[in-house]
Parts: sequence; structure tokens; C-alpha cells
Amino acid sequence: QLAELLVEHFQTTGSTPAKPLTGLKFVITAGPTREAIDPVRYISNHSSGKMGYALAAAAAKLGAEVTLISGPVQLTTPTGVSRIDVASAIEMQQAALTAAQTHDIFIGCAAVADYRMAEVAPQKLKKTADNDVLTLQLVKNPDIIASIAALTSHRPYTVGFAAETEQVAQYAQQKLLNKNLDLICANDVSVAGQGFNSEQNALTVYGPQFEQALPLQDKNTLAQALITLIVEQYQNEKKH
Amino acid sequence: QLAELLVEHFQTTGSTPAKPLTGLKFVITAGPTREAIDPVRYISNHSSGKMGYALAAAAAKLGAEVTLISGPVQLTTPTGVSRIDVASAIEMQQAALTAAQTHDIFIGCAAVADYRMAEVAPQKLKKTADNDVLTLQLVKNPDIIASIAALTSHRPYTVGFAAETEQVAQYAQQKLLNKNLDLICANDVSVAGQGFNSEQNALTVYGPQFEQALPLQDKNTLAQALITLIVEQYQNEKKH
Repeated sequence: QLAELLVEHFQTTGSTPAKPLTGLKFVITAGPTREAIDPVRYISNHSSGKMGYALAAAAAKLGAEVTLISGPVQLTTPTGVSRIDVASAIEMQQAALTAAQTHDIFIGCAAVADYRMAEVAPQKLKKTADNDVLTLQLVKNPDIIASIAALTSHRPYTVGFAAETEQVAQYAQQKLLNKNLDLICANDVSVAGQGFNSEQNALTVYGPQFEQALPLQDKNTLAQALITLIVEQYQNEKKH
Repeated sequence: QLAELLVEHFQTTGSTPAKPLTGLKFVITAGPTREAIDPVRYISNHSSGKMGYALAAAAAKLGAEVTLISGPVQLTTPTGVSRIDVASAIEMQQAALTAAQTHDIFIGCAAVADYRMAEVAPQKLKKTADNDVLTLQLVKNPDIIASIAALTSHRPYTVGFAAETEQVAQYAQQKLLNKNLDLICANDVSVAGQGFNSEQNALTVYGPQFEQALPLQDKNTLAQALITLIVEQYQNEKKH
């Protein structure tokens, strides 16, 4: 069984590790997006990109072909991974829709900004004595993972993430259904020491008839467990 | 003359360089600030912190005592520099006002956010199907450099920066007067290859009766020239 092969792989310390995922193509999004307010200011979030980069590294190590679509992060591209750098959600969506056409599994691990400025100011917004308050008008960004899951041809197996601070299980399961995802990985970012900017993470993975908790552990170890779980579910799905 | 001593210092490659700024205390702010929207999102800007860090390194190398108040950046603390990490403008101001009391020269090189959220949401703001738009209400942040320059006791010699995209000289000179600064370093960030996130920079320094252009050069070399210029002007001022 594949899961056993993968477990075996990660325990192997030999010089010629097995490449059980050879031929399988992943596209993974990672990091935050940056939404410009004006030429110098932007809206972003605390995503470090570590989880997505760890997933890309784990999949590549197992022989998969990996395209990593990355927001602005301070991380080195993992060995054997093709990286595409983007800034805004719109740019990330364009890269994701293009890559999805030729990949088997899409993992949306990026913390995509839900909103962007209705209009980006072409010059730096000046602070004046008159305006003690400033109102920013934002509009909704495209929902990248939902647009991937809604593809009617060449739709990849689609795995999302949900970073929540409250009612984590409920919000994650709603997203799974509303966005027509195959799996969703729920992350409680209100707990100190896991999630954004942390070295460790804990996740609960939900499918339509599936639930599995992956306890708090180093993001690299968690990434190996998660890639194993995703590939197992992907292959179960393909059988039906 | 001090300027000559400084030039000589930077040309010296011997093992025991002169420390002409021994006894002089600098406080330098650097990097962007981050203003929280909710627990995961924030507003920030493209400042890399490189210019402020280069100034801190140059002053410390010359024997000055340097306190560096830093927003979130990906940079190593220069040798011999005391670093205080902050996130928001409010935090930076508190650290700056405290440090100003015991320092001779204040250089405000940080790209402080002009505005912060009127109220920070305690939980992650949820995107719902209903709200296609989102309005963020911002209020003005304290003007850190102006509050330093307005000190009536223990006021340090106060040097500001102005990053502008248009009418650079005019806006910089207005700031110099309005904020009661001793010097202002004007930076045209609309020009590619200088300023934010660049390795090089060009500045024009204005005082009430003073103007000097420092042409495009490596930020470390520019920092040495700027520290020399600031100390020269500071000592001229002290004579009167």
C-alpha cells in the first residue's frame, strides 16, 4: 500500500531513496499575498510560507514534480521545486489557473488576501493636517481555491487550508462544502506556537466523509505526513 | 576638522581604526511599522530597513553608541549596536521617546505608518457572501519624529527622512519646517533602483539654511557619507 511505502521512505536513510511519487504533479501555493494601497503601502498577513514550502520540499523529495506559486516570503526554494513568484491575489490566481491545467494535485496553502483596494493610488497617499481619519474601500479578491475546484476540465484534486481563530472545525467544514474541495486542512491560529510564523503546526484534515487529526509537530515532519495523507486520499478517489 | 577625520577613517584599512565618534549617542529608527487589522492581517509598507541598519552600522563603526529601534525586517543587527524590536507606530514612539532622553542625535529613518486601524478586530474578520466590499476606518498615528523634535528638555539633534514619489524637494522642505527638524533626508522612491528594497540609494539633505545632494551609491557607502554630514552639521549647531 502506498501509505506504507511512504512511511518506509521517510524511515530510509540509504543513499538511493525510493521516489514513490514519480510522475505525480503538484502545484502548491504558499505565503501571503500583498495588496497595494499605493506605491509604498500594502495590506498583507502574517503567513511565513513555511508550511507550503515544507509541503513542496516533502513532495519533491518523494519524486513528485512540484510547481510552487509563492507570495513574498524570506525562504529558499526547496531542491527540485519550480518556483513562480507573485505578489497580489490576482497574480496568484492567474499563475494557479495556468498551472492547474497540467497538474494532478493542487494544494492551496497560501494565505490569500480576501480583499484588495477598490482602487490603487498611483502616487503615495499624502497625510495632511485636515484628514485625521482615512477610509480604505476594499473589494473582494477572487477565491483562488474555489476557482480551481470549479474547473470543469483538467480539474486537479483540490486541497485547501483554513486558518481560523474560532469555531475552527465548523468554518473548515463549511469551506470544504461551499468551495467543492476534496480535502481541507484546518489550522487553529489562535493557539500560540502553531501556525503563522511558527516552526510547528497542528492540523485537522477533513474530506466529505473523512476526518484525521495531525498533532502538533515540526512543520517538515507534518508536511511529510500530510503529503502521505493527501496522496492516499487522491488515489482512493481515483479508484471510484 | 571632523569631516576630514571621518574621511580618513573610512580610508584606513589598518587593524586599529580611529573611533572619532566615541562618546556620541545615536538613536536610529529603521524599517516599516506594522499596523494590525485583526490577528492575522496588517497594513505595512515596502521599507526594507537597509538604510537605517547601514546608518547604525556606520555610526557604531566610528565609535558611537547606537540604539536601533527596528520594525519587522529581515536583517542582522550590526556589530556593537543595541537593537529594540517593535511592530506598531505606537510601540515605536514609546521606545523612541524613552531613548531620546539619553541620546545626542535622533535619526528617524523608519517608514512609520501614517495611519492605523481605528479599532483592531479581536478575531479574524470573516469574509461572507454578503459583503463584497469592506471599509477600513483608519486614524492618524502619532508623528514620531515631530514628537521628538518638539521635546522641550533633552531634545536630541533631530534628523528625519522623507520618502516621496512626487514634488520631492518641496514636500521635504515643508516637513523640515513643519516638524521643526534639524535636517531632513529626501528620497525620491519613484525612481527605480533607489530607496525601498534597493541596495542603492540617493538622497538630498536639507537643513534650514543647508542643502547637499548625495548621489546614487551603495547604501553602506551612502550611510558613511550621511553620518559624516550629520555629525558635521550637529557640531556646527552646537557651536552657535
